Amino acid sequence: MDSLQRFQNVTVIGAGVIGASWVALFLANGLQVVVQDPRAGVDAEVRGYVDRAADALRAVGLSPDSIASGHERLSFEPDLARAVANADLVQENGPERIDFKRDLWQRVAAAAPKHALLLSSSSAMPASAQARDMDAPERMLIGHPFNPPHIIPLVEVVPGAKTSPEAVQDAVAFYTALGKTPQVVRKEIGGFVANRLQAAIFRECVSLVAQGVVTVGELDSIVTHSVGLRWAVGGPFASFYLGGGDDGMRGFVRQFGPGMEARWRSMEAPVAFDEATSKTLFAQSDAAFGGHTRAALEAERDARQIAILQVLAVLDAQRS
Amino acid sequence: MDSLQRFQNVTVIGAGVIGASWVALFLANGLQVVVQDPRAGVDAEVRGYVDRAADALRAVGLSPDSIASGHERLSFEPDLARAVANADLVQENGPERIDFKRDLWQRVAAAAPKHALLLSSSSAMPASAQARDMDAPERMLIGHPFNPPHIIPLVEVVPGAKTSPEAVQDAVAFYTALGKTPQVVRKEIGGFVANRLQAAIFRECVSLVAQGVVTVGELDSIVTHSVGLRWAVGGPFASFYLGGGDDGMRGFVRQFGPGMEARWRSMEAPVAFDEATSKTLFAQSDAAFGGHTRAALEAERDARQIAILQVLAVLDAQRS
Repeated sequence: MDSLQRFQNVTVIGAGVIGASWVALFLANGLQVVVQDPRAGVDAEVRGYVDRAADALRAVGLSPDSIASGHERLSFEPDLARAVANADLVQENGPERIDFKRDLWQRVAAAAPKHALLLSSSSAMPASAQARDMDAPERMLIGHPFNPPHIIPLVEVVPGAKTSPEAVQDAVAFYTALGKTPQVVRKEIGGFVANRLQAAIFRECVSLVAQGVVTVGELDSIVTHSVGLRWAVGGPFASFYLGGGDDGMRGFVRQFGPGMEARWRSMEAPVAFDEATSKTLFAQSDAAFGGHTRAALEAERDARQIAILQVLAVLDAQRS
Repeated sequence: MDSLQRFQNVTVIGAGVIGASWVALFLANGLQVVVQDPRAGVDAEVRGYVDRAADALRAVGLSPDSIASGHERLSFEPDLARAVANADLVQENGPERIDFKRDLWQRVAAAAPKHALLLSSSSAMPASAQARDMDAPERMLIGHPFNPPHIIPLVEVVPGAKTSPEAVQDAVAFYTALGKTPQVVRKEIGGFVANRLQAAIFRECVSLVAQGVVTVGELDSIVTHSVGLRWAVGGPFASFYLGGGDDGMRGFVRQFGPGMEARWRSMEAPVAFDEATSKTLFAQSDAAFGGHTRAALEAERDARQIAILQVLAVLDAQRS
């Protein structure tokens, strides 16, 4: 049976920015969505987000009919037990507090159908920690998207110690059927992979700005005109594999390994958001980005992001 | 006077991969190019590279006429003094050995016209170190491209202690006139900015693979489907500024700063290309990339890179 048929009824717990984006994506794939979020006005907020996401969802290739009919398949149920009573799949986006998550999953496991796949969008709390007190931890795991999930392809699928292999397979099949690019992470580690890479590069970004080598705006321009473009088409390993010439990674490590290790040692000084560093970052960020509204910056970012995804999809289609 | 008219006669010293790519770019911009490289067969090698670069140069918007007539403006002169005797500008791509560079610039300064702008593509040797023994160090500075220079926009312009402000302005104007995106780096630091950022992220990439969290191929897929796409349209600071909500960078540091600092501390263990790590990297790189020739991988990379640059250029044109 097709993954989207098996997981036709989805409950989204917590409908902030990430949750609302998941809702838009699920609806555009024809699924029935129940939103559980006790905040007043959440229904208008989510429906507004779904409307604003429609152009992007069409642009990334989802069915215009499913997008147009999305609201008919969307409902809201503030009571958690009732919200998950008929769920084939739960995508959780609640507060990043471990006590909240543990209590939540106990209650979800008690109220949801036994076959329900239980996924957390958490970027910070591994499944093993979240599932500690629940029944049926074998159906619970991380499905961590990259913001916003209705546009960016990656979903990190991270099983906990008690997650079953079948649940991992189901999560991968489900996200793939949605048009996402799931990647199973083999060990639980704080920040998983994408956020650890962001932290690693940001540490050096902050260090370079704090040292006065470049400003915030200059650093971003360097990235978007060099490494960012490169990493949109090939990762760091592919880039350095080609940089190693005919000997690939062996050639790279032989030729550039010692210099890279020396550079790593030059990055060992502590970096922190101390008062002086924060003051510099805030002033330069205001100078670089403060002239535009957040909505305008996001719209610009998403338009460029979608244009890139579309052109890469065309090339993929030509290749296959 | 237009920058390209002022720097009509360019000498490229060293015509390996980077040098040949500069040659193709300079010719496509209508410049006269002398190549100085004593290797046997360098003329056929460079002319072959120029031919292969033609499609990419047309795709990034350079004049088809200038591209077609490039070979007529290209010559080879193995003698250094003769090669630079008529140069308005020198772009050096020699071996990354400081003694070689110091000797070279002494000889170039003695043989080139006094007005010649002297640029090194070096990624490793700051201008202050290279220019130590030469006359006229005020005209010498770094113009470090990101490979391949005829495709990737960034050029890091890094003056040395004795470089004049006019030389910095001239370098920025020259690279801008070529269609590049030069960025002045305010302090000399090993690896400048782009390569330091690559080193910072690669340290965590190697660490994650060495720990078995993901494989080489999985890590690259995570990057190209998330942070790479993002950084092609907005740098790390813009991304986190938006991640901070309505409070921008202040909101980001308040909400995510402590977690990010904790993650930085978790990255403090040494990372090195030791025997076990190298073995893992080599085997997994072979598995991920070894099924294709280097030429095929590069062609695929460049096609996708150019497609992204083209679509972003269309959006830029619509905005302005």
